[in-house]
Amino acid sequence: MSVFLPKGTRDLLPAQMRARLAVLGTLREVFARFGFEPLETPAMERIETLTGKYGDEGDKLIFRILKRGEGGERGETDLALRYDLTVPLARVVAMHPELPMPFKRYQIQPVWRADRPQRGRLREFYQCDADIVGCPDMSADAECIAVAYTALRALGFVDFTIRLNHRATLRSICAAIGAADRESSVLIAVDKLDKIGRDGVSAELAERGLSAESIRSLWTLLGEQGEAAMDALDTQLDAPGRAGLAELREVLAFARAMGVGPEHLRFDPTLARGLDYYTGPVYETVLNDGSIGSVSAGGRYDGLVGRFSGRSVPAVGVSLGLERLLIILEERGMLGGGASSAEVLVTVFDETLRGQALEAATALRTAGVPTLLTLERGHKLGRQLKQADALGVRWAVVIGPDEARRGEVNLKDLHAGEQARLPLAEAVARVLTSRG
Amino acid sequence: MSVFLPKGTRDLLPAQMRARLAVLGTLREVFARFGFEPLETPAMERIETLTGKYGDEGDKLIFRILKRGEGGERGETDLALRYDLTVPLARVVAMHPELPMPFKRYQIQPVWRADRPQRGRLREFYQCDADIVGCPDMSADAECIAVAYTALRALGFVDFTIRLNHRATLRSICAAIGAADRESSVLIAVDKLDKIGRDGVSAELAERGLSAESIRSLWTLLGEQGEAAMDALDTQLDAPGRAGLAELREVLAFARAMGVGPEHLRFDPTLARGLDYYTGPVYETVLNDGSIGSVSAGGRYDGLVGRFSGRSVPAVGVSLGLERLLIILEERGMLGGGASSAEVLVTVFDETLRGQALEAATALRTAGVPTLLTLERGHKLGRQLKQADALGVRWAVVIGPDEARRGEVNLKDLHAGEQARLPLAEAVARVLTSRG
Repeated sequence: MSVFLPKGTRDLLPAQMRARLAVLGTLREVFARFGFEPLETPAMERIETLTGKYGDEGDKLIFRILKRGEGGERGETDLALRYDLTVPLARVVAMHPELPMPFKRYQIQPVWRADRPQRGRLREFYQCDADIVGCPDMSADAECIAVAYTALRALGFVDFTIRLNHRATLRSICAAIGAADRESSVLIAVDKLDKIGRDGVSAELAERGLSAESIRSLWTLLGEQGEAAMDALDTQLDAPGRAGLAELREVLAFARAMGVGPEHLRFDPTLARGLDYYTGPVYETVLNDGSIGSVSAGGRYDGLVGRFSGRSVPAVGVSLGLERLLIILEERGMLGGGASSAEVLVTVFDETLRGQALEAATALRTAGVPTLLTLERGHKLGRQLKQADALGVRWAVVIGPDEARRGEVNLKDLHAGEQARLPLAEAVARVLTSRG
Repeated sequence: MSVFLPKGTRDLLPAQMRARLAVLGTLREVFARFGFEPLETPAMERIETLTGKYGDEGDKLIFRILKRGEGGERGETDLALRYDLTVPLARVVAMHPELPMPFKRYQIQPVWRADRPQRGRLREFYQCDADIVGCPDMSADAECIAVAYTALRALGFVDFTIRLNHRATLRSICAAIGAADRESSVLIAVDKLDKIGRDGVSAELAERGLSAESIRSLWTLLGEQGEAAMDALDTQLDAPGRAGLAELREVLAFARAMGVGPEHLRFDPTLARGLDYYTGPVYETVLNDGSIGSVSAGGRYDGLVGRFSGRSVPAVGVSLGLERLLIILEERGMLGGGASSAEVLVTVFDETLRGQALEAATALRTAGVPTLLTLERGHKLGRQLKQADALGVRWAVVIGPDEARRGEVNLKDLHAGEQARLPLAEAVARVLTSRG
């Protein structure tokens, strides 16, 4: 039978998996340092749990599962695959009122979206989210920014900028230019600034009915970044807009106290972020060389959890773009990894000496050294050593009749091109020492 | 809106996740020691890939996904959720002829089965498999047994038995009792020996048409276990049956050389194992106290991979019962874990001193210590210290006006009931030292 994969999905072969596990290990360690706890939720959710949270476009992309038994033969569906990790978090908080608040959780799991594959998008990909539920204070927003910053630094990134804005400030800017009734049009157009430039955004705003005057005022208000821009806007915005700016000043101060300085975190009034559900600070991280879109993003969404729980529950979170980060790390050679993770190949001289080979492999494995053993019968020694080269292992162990008689092994350092005949325990010790 | 989970699924809350991550870390480390490489495959496979591999009963349990766009409105499905990890492995091998053989992979991912939830079975659960593809020799079977043995030992299990049998031996026994045409009936009945006992199996065999004479002969052949049983069968079975026994002797010798002795691995001619696709040695691990069904199982399945690749590819593997192992480890108190994984709570004396608290938390986190910081404004110190108790953290850091003036912190050891005022760097050092 011919075999292939569903569109938009892929296998993660060993080299990719090793890189991924290394990155995930770093991320889990950073999340734990900040006191975020791990959570996993089922792949399947009830359809009603998911629909109506992602907008009409999002709803269309939800994969539905055929009902088991009654109704399934008519194409009825009652379950669907999760579309993100935020809605499942909101459901968990609603179902578990006993969770201590603030509830800080991280979650690293795949999500599924029926995007058109021709856009090069995957239909199954991992999300990696850290969220704080139950705290309305800006210390929580700052901690989300700090955990993303620390994670990126731990992965080896240095030249990146976290852009910071506030939904209230954006709303207030719309009011100030006489476009309070066109807030979402302004958001959508300004969100494209990086892609289509200022003239492109102006043209789109004009098309959407903004006057030339409004557009001119908009660019005046959006002209600056950083603290100077905040000072300038403070004199021109209404009270809610100024309250948003005051919250951002708190976020900046707290983040700075956690080591996230102005070289990495900057107020940017043009940052829009697409999702409807954000209510407070929003942020996204871009690499300074502009090589790719954002590598992390998040914000405050005080309304979403309450839609499930019926009580008002503030929430803020940040998502790391795991798939993008892996692509960049690979492109930049920041990931290790060869053909195999094994460090030693124990060869089998002939079948009468397999017992000695098994003993040597077991001694190495017991000492914690990733070790391969030749499993096939009758492979010549030369062929086995070629395989060791192909796999990229540093060491090969050979036990011929001479070595067996003396109770020794021949340890070959394939990288250095050296070898030594010595007792098994000493060979194990030498391999261990070389690992540092 | 009312919220609940799909039947047969569950959330993994932080305490469960921490235990699971610890166990998975141990398993990944053991797999790596034996040179198994990680692999992941998509949750979704094409329906044709899955059907026809698990028998009619299995096919009925496959979750199908509604087609996107054309046909979906008529209930058509083209994709399904994976049912196990073995068929996806066979597909990967067929699609990647470049993989070096033998291909040793492990895979830890959820699978989905639409089992009736009233039987208490989960519809989404993790499987944890290690397989060796491309080696016909018994050294591979022995390595699968050794990796399962080593994993169970690494998790802290001591009193367990790996039961070992061979499909050819079972077939030969059927021939020897004059029931060659009733092999699957004998397999199905004998598989229930643990549950319904010898009399129950005899009754079922009689119902299935075996003569009293055949049944008597069967119990004579199945009467013994271990090496004595192998010697006895050797004189009574046909050539294929004896060849199976010879393969098992090889497996036993290789496993013993890898440290899996007769106290843990035993020939048991009554072991049947349900799956159709096994062709050689089969094995399963039971705990000696009989507290639960098998905790790992596997065998050789030389035909399955070839169904995808069109070439004959031998394969052997073992599956660890991750969900069962977690249940037992929890019941026996073999897992750590409190309310939180954090070790320190940095309190905030009042908002004027939040900067100092942020600095202390950042110093601890930078040193790698999982640290919580009070995020809420205006919580009294007493309330914060109560929270530290509830979370089970060992240390609390307090920085009041006095400490701030001296450039010190108050480090409270909540377990020992002691406290000390000292510079931040020394407090960090003390926490680090206590972790060992």
